[in-house]
Amino acid sequence: MATLVELGQRAKLAAAQLMTAPTGQKNKALAAIAESLLANTAAILKANALDVEAARRAGSKEAFIERLTLTESRVKAISAGIREIIQLEDPVGKIEGGSTRPNGLKIVKVRVPLGVLGIIYESRPNVTADAAALCLKSGNAVILRGGPEALNSNICLIGLMREALEQNGLNKDCCILLEDTSLETAREMMRLNDYIDVLIPRGGAGLIKAVIENATVPCIETGLGNCHIFIDKSADLAQAVSITDNAKNSRPSVCNALETLLVHRGIAEAFLPKVKPALDAFKVELRGCHLTMEILGPGVLPASDEDYFTEFNDYILAVKVVGGLDEAIAHIRHYSSKHSEGIVTGDYAAAEKFVNNVDAAAVYVNASTRFTDGGEFGMGAEIGISTQKLHTRGPMGLQELTSNKYIVYGNGQIRV
Amino acid sequence: MATLVELGQRAKLAAAQLMTAPTGQKNKALAAIAESLLANTAAILKANALDVEAARRAGSKEAFIERLTLTESRVKAISAGIREIIQLEDPVGKIEGGSTRPNGLKIVKVRVPLGVLGIIYESRPNVTADAAALCLKSGNAVILRGGPEALNSNICLIGLMREALEQNGLNKDCCILLEDTSLETAREMMRLNDYIDVLIPRGGAGLIKAVIENATVPCIETGLGNCHIFIDKSADLAQAVSITDNAKNSRPSVCNALETLLVHRGIAEAFLPKVKPALDAFKVELRGCHLTMEILGPGVLPASDEDYFTEFNDYILAVKVVGGLDEAIAHIRHYSSKHSEGIVTGDYAAAEKFVNNVDAAAVYVNASTRFTDGGEFGMGAEIGISTQKLHTRGPMGLQELTSNKYIVYGNGQIRV
Repeated sequence: MATLVELGQRAKLAAAQLMTAPTGQKNKALAAIAESLLANTAAILKANALDVEAARRAGSKEAFIERLTLTESRVKAISAGIREIIQLEDPVGKIEGGSTRPNGLKIVKVRVPLGVLGIIYESRPNVTADAAALCLKSGNAVILRGGPEALNSNICLIGLMREALEQNGLNKDCCILLEDTSLETAREMMRLNDYIDVLIPRGGAGLIKAVIENATVPCIETGLGNCHIFIDKSADLAQAVSITDNAKNSRPSVCNALETLLVHRGIAEAFLPKVKPALDAFKVELRGCHLTMEILGPGVLPASDEDYFTEFNDYILAVKVVGGLDEAIAHIRHYSSKHSEGIVTGDYAAAEKFVNNVDAAAVYVNASTRFTDGGEFGMGAEIGISTQKLHTRGPMGLQELTSNKYIVYGNGQIRV
Repeated sequence: MATLVELGQRAKLAAAQLMTAPTGQKNKALAAIAESLLANTAAILKANALDVEAARRAGSKEAFIERLTLTESRVKAISAGIREIIQLEDPVGKIEGGSTRPNGLKIVKVRVPLGVLGIIYESRPNVTADAAALCLKSGNAVILRGGPEALNSNICLIGLMREALEQNGLNKDCCILLEDTSLETAREMMRLNDYIDVLIPRGGAGLIKAVIENATVPCIETGLGNCHIFIDKSADLAQAVSITDNAKNSRPSVCNALETLLVHRGIAEAFLPKVKPALDAFKVELRGCHLTMEILGPGVLPASDEDYFTEFNDYILAVKVVGGLDEAIAHIRHYSSKHSEGIVTGDYAAAEKFVNNVDAAAVYVNASTRFTDGGEFGMGAEIGISTQKLHTRGPMGLQELTSNKYIVYGNGQIRV
């Protein structure tokens, strides 16, 4: 098996070639990939069945197996997702600005691929295909390190993708799967600065923490979402109930789901009993402050400080009654992971104060936090949602997978 | 003395306040700082004299003492630099785009400060004032960790700046100097993820490497410049000599200076003897390939592979005769630090191939690499030159000290 450094060298060479590949050629390869995945559904499902059987034998949880499992309709969805990427605008080569300087130098700022991306993720085989397709379209080579439990599925998927790349005149090393899924090799990958330009971890808090702790390659922290919604005194009650219900219950396992509900003291007695049935319908466990417990009575557990820091990713909701907008903003500043934060209000000044003073990737007025998503934002597919401030925040689409270069045209200028 | 965590907490609070400070208020504070530094020149020079004396007693090199020393004219220049920052456009609040989605959500992408910056640098007191002023104008709080040898100078400068901040209604903790200059505390600072959003090391290769190795806070790698110029066969010889001379000799200690000269074989015998006198005038030590040695005769040392990787920052130049454009591009790909790369050519196709295939922060046609600089690029002052692809590449001005946030205005939208 090739060493990690050898794989890095290959990816770097492939990236240098892919950097200048025309959009048409990349799209042709993507179309061939989409077609090949469909045509080879049987082989993909066979490989996936090996992974699923092994996971069952190992006694994995049902939710884990659900994420690991591919079906005919999931392969169709993956293939359709790749076709959608073909439709998206290629960010590479976009001229972002520039100037002609007094000395006559023409400075042109142009978008270029990041180079070689490293993606470290868990055992969802659909991520393998999505991520590889997004990297290809944005002109980046990629080294994928997926969870060991999905290895058979990943080998099959990436094998098909590499074949399609080669048949379309692209270097198959644009897309490399790390078949050695040891932790040691993953750690080595995180420090492969000579060959990997940017590392993107995709997965749970533990994975992301491990990458941030160990990596020397520049990272983008993704996906941790301890999201809040503040129900202001002037909120429309029906709207507040509908938004809370949607933000908590429509898909609690994802990063843009609601984790802590903050309620203005002046509306708490009216609002909390009104929202309770919507939460009860999904058997949401409530962990509340003293006032919440007083208003809603038994059935509400006491919330700890730790609860307010926690991304439950489950049918659990922390609740706190606050004195007003300022206390809500201060609470969010202290506990938030700066992913998605919302206010429900009828008061213009409160809305503006909230959006200006809450620092997060996405700040909402009178809408569900669940909209923080590349597709919902109109970017097309996303590779993740950045919660760090470096590079970009929020959903990362193709544009966010590029960097810039300055091209300077002169006619003999020297610096005096 | 306050602990690092306490300092981090203070900076975080100050950043939250500064985030929404109007441009006028920030400019007023900057004007007060510029004025105060001038008015207190005597005190600054007195503090600086303590540092310079200690450095002399410690037997520091002359070049080090030169960088450490402040003079009346240097203080004037620092003050004038701060006045220039007042004139620059405030990037905070700039609306970069957005869309109204089919469901009626209005998504607005807006520039926001990074938050708290950490800057780790060496013993140049002018960096203290420059960096603090740039951070202030871009709405960021900053924790500065300068070299221990400049501590007295830095305490004096930052003390004056904090006073001016407070007098202008801003939190003085927008600008914090780390007075504990132990390595241990510097390392702790590199891992202060809860309080520092972005870390920028400014200094030599050793400092930058240490930060990249140890930091868990997201970093911007700056300033390493192993820059190349390729003299193509069709180059105008006089232009090639002038550009080489300027790129190597005008200021060899800086990151945009030329380190390796690549010469097309077809022009080497004509060009090398022509450029030699310009290099001899500065006693530039030449380390060449076999052909260079043959053409220029004795006095050229043999270049090692290591030489081609080295940023000399001195009157030393590596030289290599290459077969043509492709070999030049391949050499640069292998050895370059991706800072600034140039071609001198009369051939349009060669120029375009070079700029498209060389991946660096700045790629030049027929101009000196010495222009890679925020001022020369028309950005105004710069905090450094990024050589990593994440966030941005090239000179980093005020705009590059910001991130983005999405503000989403709804009227009750939920995700279906």
